[in-house]
Amino acid sequence: MIDGPLDLLIKQLSSLPGLGRQSAKRVALHLLTHKESLLMPLTKTMTHVADVVQSCVSCGNLDEGDICRICRDTKRDRSTICVVAGVADLWAIERTRSYNGIYHVLGGVLSALDGISPRDLAIDSLIANIKDSDITEVILALSATVDGQSTAHYITDHLPSTSIKVTRLAHGMPMGGELNYLDDGTISTALKARANL
Amino acid sequence: MIDGPLDLLIKQLSSLPGLGRQSAKRVALHLLTHKESLLMPLTKTMTHVADVVQSCVSCGNLDEGDICRICRDTKRDRSTICVVAGVADLWAIERTRSYNGIYHVLGGVLSALDGISPRDLAIDSLIANIKDSDITEVILALSATVDGQSTAHYITDHLPSTSIKVTRLAHGMPMGGELNYLDDGTISTALKARANL
Repeated sequence: MIDGPLDLLIKQLSSLPGLGRQSAKRVALHLLTHKESLLMPLTKTMTHVADVVQSCVSCGNLDEGDICRICRDTKRDRSTICVVAGVADLWAIERTRSYNGIYHVLGGVLSALDGISPRDLAIDSLIANIKDSDITEVILALSATVDGQSTAHYITDHLPSTSIKVTRLAHGMPMGGELNYLDDGTISTALKARANL
Repeated sequence: MIDGPLDLLIKQLSSLPGLGRQSAKRVALHLLTHKESLLMPLTKTMTHVADVVQSCVSCGNLDEGDICRICRDTKRDRSTICVVAGVADLWAIERTRSYNGIYHVLGGVLSALDGISPRDLAIDSLIANIKDSDITEVILALSATVDGQSTAHYITDHLPSTSIKVTRLAHGMPMGGELNYLDDGTISTALKARANL
């Protein structure tokens, strides 16, 4: 095996999510055989991103500058805040173009197993933000897992006891989902929450 | 979706082999949440690699400097040359530590389908190298595919008609391979090439 910078590159690439040693080697070779068209532009972008992209001090989204473009956008509805576990969830919701409020990124969900306590998440800042604001609805867009749901309960319990409406994403059959491939929990939840046609 | 440098980063990452749009997004987020420990060191390594790593003028391996460390190594046996399609194959053979000769990287194999002709591969330089040298054996370590084998035949036909021995990797059962999972071609090849116990 080759030592030196190439080996270091492969080692660093293999620590990326989804890349093992073999795929990191493939990526490294691909980068080196496309030096002008990929390796150098990608390096430039990474340097630029490292310089300018940071967590939004208001919501925790990743974007250029202190305040992200969603928080800066005056057309967004500041009375609704959508609480998500991570930035990937925020992007997923933005992609749907069906939400026009603002966000709050927790940075994870509570987990006894992984030792993640309320102090490790941006819950205090969420509650502080809500207190000083005109927010009328908090959407808890957390995963339908035990950890996601206990995080939702924790936040609900600690919200200032005002007239704020707290909602969660609907549970049920995913669109395009085939009934006989769904797990029992989803089917029984969808059955209980059945709606009039 | 976020535009700007982050979007560009995701787009560039998704053009890497094995990474789609979703995994590129995951990698980008991972890089940004590990700015000090991964994004910046990786950028540094990539810049360094782009600067110093190049194709060996002698064999085509990727390494620092004009001549790779295998070609520089005076302990290697210069009478045996191993012809491989790509650098990944060279690395795979080096990993086994069972070969002590030198290499020649073709940069691919002949392919009528992909329009790869002898002119696209480093075949002329291989033949020139062999002519001026003390090489006594050429190992054609090419894939056991139609393209690999026709490349091997092409090279054999164009070698200077001297006393040079031309060999290929053995065909047969892979070590640890279970017989009933092997394809018919491999089984019949292994049967024809059976050896005394």
